[in-house]
Amino acid sequence: MYGWVGRLLRVNLTTGECRVEKLDPVMARDYIGARGLASKILYNEVDPQVDPLSPENKLIFMTGPLTGTSAISGSRYNVVTKSPLTGTIAASNSGGYFAGELKYAGYDGIIFEGKASEPVYLYIENDRVEIRPAGHVWGKTTHETEDILKSEAPAGAKVACIGPAGEKLVRFACVVNDKNRAAGRSGVGAVMGSKNLKAVVVRGTGGIKIADPEGFRQAVKAALEKIKNNPVTHGGLPDYGTAVLVNVINAHGAFPTRNFQTGVFPGAEKISGETLAATYLVRKKGCLACPIACGRATLVPEGPYAGHGEGPEYEAIWAMGADCGVDDLAAITKANYYANELGYDPITFGATLACAMELYEKGYLPAQDTELELEFGNARTLVEAARKVGYREGIGDLLAEGSYRLAERYGHPELSMSTKKQEYPAYDPRAIQGIGLNYATTNRGGCHVRGYTIASEVLGIPVQTDPLVTEGKAGLVKTFQDLTALVDSTGICLFVTFALGASDVVSMLAPATGIPYTEEAGMLAGERIFNLERLFNLAAGLTRADDTLAPRILQEPLPEGPAKGRVNRLDEMLDEYYRVRGWDEEGRPTEATKQRLGI
Amino acid sequence: MYGWVGRLLRVNLTTGECRVEKLDPVMARDYIGARGLASKILYNEVDPQVDPLSPENKLIFMTGPLTGTSAISGSRYNVVTKSPLTGTIAASNSGGYFAGELKYAGYDGIIFEGKASEPVYLYIENDRVEIRPAGHVWGKTTHETEDILKSEAPAGAKVACIGPAGEKLVRFACVVNDKNRAAGRSGVGAVMGSKNLKAVVVRGTGGIKIADPEGFRQAVKAALEKIKNNPVTHGGLPDYGTAVLVNVINAHGAFPTRNFQTGVFPGAEKISGETLAATYLVRKKGCLACPIACGRATLVPEGPYAGHGEGPEYEAIWAMGADCGVDDLAAITKANYYANELGYDPITFGATLACAMELYEKGYLPAQDTELELEFGNARTLVEAARKVGYREGIGDLLAEGSYRLAERYGHPELSMSTKKQEYPAYDPRAIQGIGLNYATTNRGGCHVRGYTIASEVLGIPVQTDPLVTEGKAGLVKTFQDLTALVDSTGICLFVTFALGASDVVSMLAPATGIPYTEEAGMLAGERIFNLERLFNLAAGLTRADDTLAPRILQEPLPEGPAKGRVNRLDEMLDEYYRVRGWDEEGRPTEATKQRLGI
Repeated sequence: MYGWVGRLLRVNLTTGECRVEKLDPVMARDYIGARGLASKILYNEVDPQVDPLSPENKLIFMTGPLTGTSAISGSRYNVVTKSPLTGTIAASNSGGYFAGELKYAGYDGIIFEGKASEPVYLYIENDRVEIRPAGHVWGKTTHETEDILKSEAPAGAKVACIGPAGEKLVRFACVVNDKNRAAGRSGVGAVMGSKNLKAVVVRGTGGIKIADPEGFRQAVKAALEKIKNNPVTHGGLPDYGTAVLVNVINAHGAFPTRNFQTGVFPGAEKISGETLAATYLVRKKGCLACPIACGRATLVPEGPYAGHGEGPEYEAIWAMGADCGVDDLAAITKANYYANELGYDPITFGATLACAMELYEKGYLPAQDTELELEFGNARTLVEAARKVGYREGIGDLLAEGSYRLAERYGHPELSMSTKKQEYPAYDPRAIQGIGLNYATTNRGGCHVRGYTIASEVLGIPVQTDPLVTEGKAGLVKTFQDLTALVDSTGICLFVTFALGASDVVSMLAPATGIPYTEEAGMLAGERIFNLERLFNLAAGLTRADDTLAPRILQEPLPEGPAKGRVNRLDEMLDEYYRVRGWDEEGRPTEATKQRLGI
Repeated sequence: MYGWVGRLLRVNLTTGECRVEKLDPVMARDYIGARGLASKILYNEVDPQVDPLSPENKLIFMTGPLTGTSAISGSRYNVVTKSPLTGTIAASNSGGYFAGELKYAGYDGIIFEGKASEPVYLYIENDRVEIRPAGHVWGKTTHETEDILKSEAPAGAKVACIGPAGEKLVRFACVVNDKNRAAGRSGVGAVMGSKNLKAVVVRGTGGIKIADPEGFRQAVKAALEKIKNNPVTHGGLPDYGTAVLVNVINAHGAFPTRNFQTGVFPGAEKISGETLAATYLVRKKGCLACPIACGRATLVPEGPYAGHGEGPEYEAIWAMGADCGVDDLAAITKANYYANELGYDPITFGATLACAMELYEKGYLPAQDTELELEFGNARTLVEAARKVGYREGIGDLLAEGSYRLAERYGHPELSMSTKKQEYPAYDPRAIQGIGLNYATTNRGGCHVRGYTIASEVLGIPVQTDPLVTEGKAGLVKTFQDLTALVDSTGICLFVTFALGASDVVSMLAPATGIPYTEEAGMLAGERIFNLERLFNLAAGLTRADDTLAPRILQEPLPEGPAKGRVNRLDEMLDEYYRVRGWDEEGRPTEATKQRLGI
């Protein structure tokens, strides 16, 4: 095959059997790769009602046809499974260098089944595939694990692993590769931990065949020109990283603060990308084949939070900063190092801590239940909690369940700022209406990188829409969600969409694979993938009632800022969204829609 | 489903089991229906090396998503199987009213497997499906069979059946429905006979769901306007039937005469569509949903060839007329009645008789082997042979094998005007270069309705190309072949393509099915189907050597007319054709092509 390797590795951890399978080319064509292809395999093979942490759940690592090629940002893989946080399908993706190496070894993806009786890791060196004992790295951080396992592999090997959080089944544990790149959300690392699978080590020396090398080269070149002429991808992101958004979103009054009690954070400037660049930034870092290089290598040289590593990103800065009322960038950076090294999602962690702080300040979470002082703004508590949650120590054991289960435990689930039990990221839906509809309808719960309408509603990409208006947002959300599903499935990074559209994506995808994807066919594939995820969730038991927002977002007006007095008017958008999606009133894809999409 | 019913009927004639199966919607989307879908099922289920007349071969009746709808000419079904004439995949299609009725009964198609121990017919009345004894109609003509079986069924029932030719395994026997409509070529009726299956009787009272009724109505209306404004579909064909071509093609010196010994027939005017209209034509007849109505109800009121029925069509007039040197239209019409009633293909019959005549005149076929005088131009011999071949009587038993096996038997296979053992139709490839490339490469052997470049090379539709030139014909042939595969698979009639293009076809197909087929996607589906047929043939053992033309066409210049001195220059076109198809030098689709097409 071209683009795809054409081979999948199926690993049964219960029996120890490792088997190479042929990739179904028609399934690949229709579901493309990565998120889409892995979701299709999960949909085909796993009962949606399965307990996510049982051996019957599967864990799928999957690259896309552009992964490992010279396509702009072709660095990514997805980890797809049923989420222990949300009970929905989970698809989390990551960049770095691991995914390309997997393809160079001769595999588009790996399907993990069952559960090992002891901690193990998977070792791949081209055609050599071994399940090896991992007792010696069990309990180690992601950085320690990577260093140790690399010493047991040839030069050039790449490692994806879980940290203590994944081992301890923290519901928002992630899979970390290349030390600081993570398939971050929805707890895919906990599923890996539940299988006693510590890591995947891979070394590959093969190549990827391109169907039309000259056409592909021209397409990549044209796309690169667009990346270089765009102020976000060749300005904001390389210069300041994702945290370039802190001041922008705060100025919109959409920067959720103290568990969404307001949308304006007085300390924003102190934790902005610009401040990070002026203080702890060492250099920017890029993933395989990426000209943007939004990654931040950082160093906190001294003081109680001294350390070095990568990040924080915008979302981590917000969740562990503004949302917790913390404006100490060194503390946030240190907490972020814990997230990377212990292996969990800093968004859900920060938002859960923020929720705990509100529960604590309101007296719902009694002081005797926590060894930490949980008031908003306490930087020391943030850093301590960031360590404890990774090991489920003390209050960390409660935080490890996520904000919804925590708030429900204390009788106030309405204080969890989440949809489908996954916490919202750093955009208040009361100030930006469309993103609220996206939060309510994404297939892995509250999430921005499934339909980033911020691009349009705030940044004016590709066209400016009014963030305070609901009209037209149903179609906007659908378009962003479908485009994202397409991009996620190709193996390139969502961030290219600041500069590139679906036509640019297929302009690389078609010559790489030799399949004549048009823009329409690409968008249709994205829509197909999104609907397939939806069908998984419906079969898992979710209903229209799960397509909602936290009561605060729907009922409590923002108290200040440009969006003062606003709530999210989801009810003005949801029915129309169902209609444009071709779903019935209960949010189920109609037979006509399934036929149109070929599901 | 929309457009499709969504149900297939699988009938095992060996065991008597009849089972309803769900139509795979993704397979339906990609292979559309009729020719494409049935070919895919055959490809999936039947060993290409199978003996065509053994119980292991399958016989598939399949409608398309537009069959039975109000789409222009949505009347058609395909019969797909491995051909006993050619050893290739066979797909023959027919109009009339049978196919719509099958869908109204609730089935997109029927897959026949195995072989009945006694003659049977299949009776379908909506959900009621029975295999019934057919001893009482075995040996009967198609007309008698239809009348008798209709008396055993409710009013409105439709019948498809074989005549004596199918029972006797005449290698070019057809399946006849509505008395005079036939799935004509490649011997699909012989396969039906080999299974002891005499007929299918169907009555249905259901409907077909359309995804977007208003959009569909508008598309059909727009297509109808084009049909009405086209001089072929609203002039030549309704007024004179297909035989309007006799004078046109003869004027090009491309009207093969006396087994292709020349391209000009002096008696053309006497057997033309205009003459038929002035003599034996009673009225024109149309199939379901067809505004063209090219069918001819005819009556020969007196004389030795008195009779009534339908036709002859252009190809039959040519094969049994000019190719045999016969200019007696009454005799040709009578012979055509035999073809309809005994159930065989008049093209292969006429061409085989023409071959026999040349063998006879040259002394290769000795007089003692035949009770008929086989000299060219003998109208009485024509009519006698037309009867005998249907029953395999006397010389008819030899003719029943087709021209290639006949000529080979007498040591002169080069005198068979065929490719892949199927006889050419009524266009001399020495005078019309592109059609020669099409004959050489169609998947069921010599055939015009798999890539009717005559439209361009003679009629100037959609653009005029020079019939004597080879340059550019590779691409032209590919386009016609792919478009034809698309059209054949939707369930509409190829004749609409005189007025409609791929964009018009998908403009009806998309709202009918709810699947957003674009023109590109439609053409790609056609190409996919054509390549799948090719792969079946390659697996059956065919090679590049089978993509050729009869030696006469390549080596003997036409002796007279506008193309005097010309041969077909296939060697100037074939390599380029392989290239534009994405096949290797041996004519095998490359891996890249298979990936591009999703096969």
